[in-house]
Amino acid sequence: MERNIYDLLIIGAGCAGASGAMYAARLNLKTAMIAELPGGLITSTHLVENWPGIKSISGPDLAQSLLDHALSYDVPLINEKVLNVVASSVPSEGSKSGFTVKTGSNSYYGKCVLFATGTEHKKLGVPGEKEFANKGVSYCALCDAGFYRDKAVAVVGSGDSAAKEAILLAQKCSKVHILVRGEMMKAEAPNMVRIDELIKEGKVEIHYKTEIAEVLGKDRVDRIKLVDGKELPLDCVFVAVGHIPLSEIAGALGVNLSDKREIIINRNSETNVPGIYAAGDVTDSSFKQAITSAAEAVTAAFHAYGYVGRNKVIFG
Amino acid sequence: MERNIYDLLIIGAGCAGASGAMYAARLNLKTAMIAELPGGLITSTHLVENWPGIKSISGPDLAQSLLDHALSYDVPLINEKVLNVVASSVPSEGSKSGFTVKTGSNSYYGKCVLFATGTEHKKLGVPGEKEFANKGVSYCALCDAGFYRDKAVAVVGSGDSAAKEAILLAQKCSKVHILVRGEMMKAEAPNMVRIDELIKEGKVEIHYKTEIAEVLGKDRVDRIKLVDGKELPLDCVFVAVGHIPLSEIAGALGVNLSDKREIIINRNSETNVPGIYAAGDVTDSSFKQAITSAAEAVTAAFHAYGYVGRNKVIFG
Repeated sequence: MERNIYDLLIIGAGCAGASGAMYAARLNLKTAMIAELPGGLITSTHLVENWPGIKSISGPDLAQSLLDHALSYDVPLINEKVLNVVASSVPSEGSKSGFTVKTGSNSYYGKCVLFATGTEHKKLGVPGEKEFANKGVSYCALCDAGFYRDKAVAVVGSGDSAAKEAILLAQKCSKVHILVRGEMMKAEAPNMVRIDELIKEGKVEIHYKTEIAEVLGKDRVDRIKLVDGKELPLDCVFVAVGHIPLSEIAGALGVNLSDKREIIINRNSETNVPGIYAAGDVTDSSFKQAITSAAEAVTAAFHAYGYVGRNKVIFG
Repeated sequence: MERNIYDLLIIGAGCAGASGAMYAARLNLKTAMIAELPGGLITSTHLVENWPGIKSISGPDLAQSLLDHALSYDVPLINEKVLNVVASSVPSEGSKSGFTVKTGSNSYYGKCVLFATGTEHKKLGVPGEKEFANKGVSYCALCDAGFYRDKAVAVVGSGDSAAKEAILLAQKCSKVHILVRGEMMKAEAPNMVRIDELIKEGKVEIHYKTEIAEVLGKDRVDRIKLVDGKELPLDCVFVAVGHIPLSEIAGALGVNLSDKREIIINRNSETNVPGIYAAGDVTDSSFKQAITSAAEAVTAAFHAYGYVGRNKVIFG
């Protein structure tokens, strides 16, 4: 079992996980990434134009460059699905505290664990949504707004993120339809005031009690069909019905979660459980981007380095 | 004067400033960078191997790629030295609060200001230090340790950062001399315990009451001369006598500084003064790297976007 003992186990291998792994390896921590889907959510993004220093790169290419950097330090990438993480002693090191990460086929022991598990986009679950992903169905206005300059688009959702997506899109697109399932939007007041201005300017139109039945088009989206049978011509549907933080395993371990089920971290990427860190989309950070995910993971690696060193000194 | 009014003025154009400028421009904020020395401190680093996704790049090349990205959005780079920043109303917008940034030759008005001013390395001020910069004189073990594998090096300093540099270097170098001017080191206990272990292992040697008189070599450093006349053969001197945060102008504006004179920010890169943000080496963040600087500035740009929007809604 000796080979399964690590200083830092990183769950996830997206922007956060890979960047954290690279730093941890440089700090001489014995590190592994465990990820069912290496690359993370950014691999579903067509083009990334906001990774500092790179004017344009595909999501998969950016993810690969981050992974390649980590792999160049011989950090293993274990392609398994993590089922749970429990506090346990680390074998061969007596009573030292650590964690057991169990996958379907193996157990791994880590002195520290970094949750870089990310989120899933909530899906509409309508025909055409999956087929037209990156061809007129997007989950990120900041990523993709530039591709729909002077085009008509729709935002699906009623919350703050839907409002923000619409405000952002209205700067570039000719028309932004907001499709709200219920009778009102639930965004914060300042955003709604701005939305009202944009409605007066004719840039935004809110459609209440409206749901998409189907996303339609040929090579790319050209219209949507609503449940009442009407059709709306447009070039892109931005789905902003929320994200699902992949925090369940952390929560079961006793890590504090926000009311959105995000892992609560501090500026050092530490959680409330000593030795447990989190970074990237799964956290309660206010602004979630590839670059901020990477930085949070790098910070976690640095503090894990300090944690492992201190525990070595104090308990070793 | 209309052309001198901005949503966001960024002071500095290093890793933080340039990354923040790129994001701010993408968020449609009217943005300018004002910097006397575009590129920032990283331009003095020989090779950067820890910018996620890039296995190796020179400091100047990384800085240029970040700047080029910002400049591709037509963000002006104003090459002037900022003398002071004062709270003031923004011309043509009545009583709206904002800030006047004065340089030697101009005044600029910003609704928000991002301090991305960085730090200066404290220097030894001895002959040879400047001449051998990047040729055996380094200010960053994490950046440069890999170049001195199995070589003898010295760390100059007695504080926590000197201890950390020595611990890090001891993982790669054959011998680490710590040169302490006084009679004791002032690093935190866990670091000193680790240093003591490394002394027992013969990896580290502390020289108390010791100061460098001169850094010597031909093309690269090969030895140092001490004030007592002795010479010590080695391949690199790591200077860890501290940094000087360039926070004076922010402090004069009423921005809260730490006891190290760093600008205190929260996880949103906000300071105590509404509309004033800070990012990068000038802040009180626990781990200061190019990637964390970029992420802090990106986060600042996002919150400045919210701030400008809210003020427009509320006061406009």
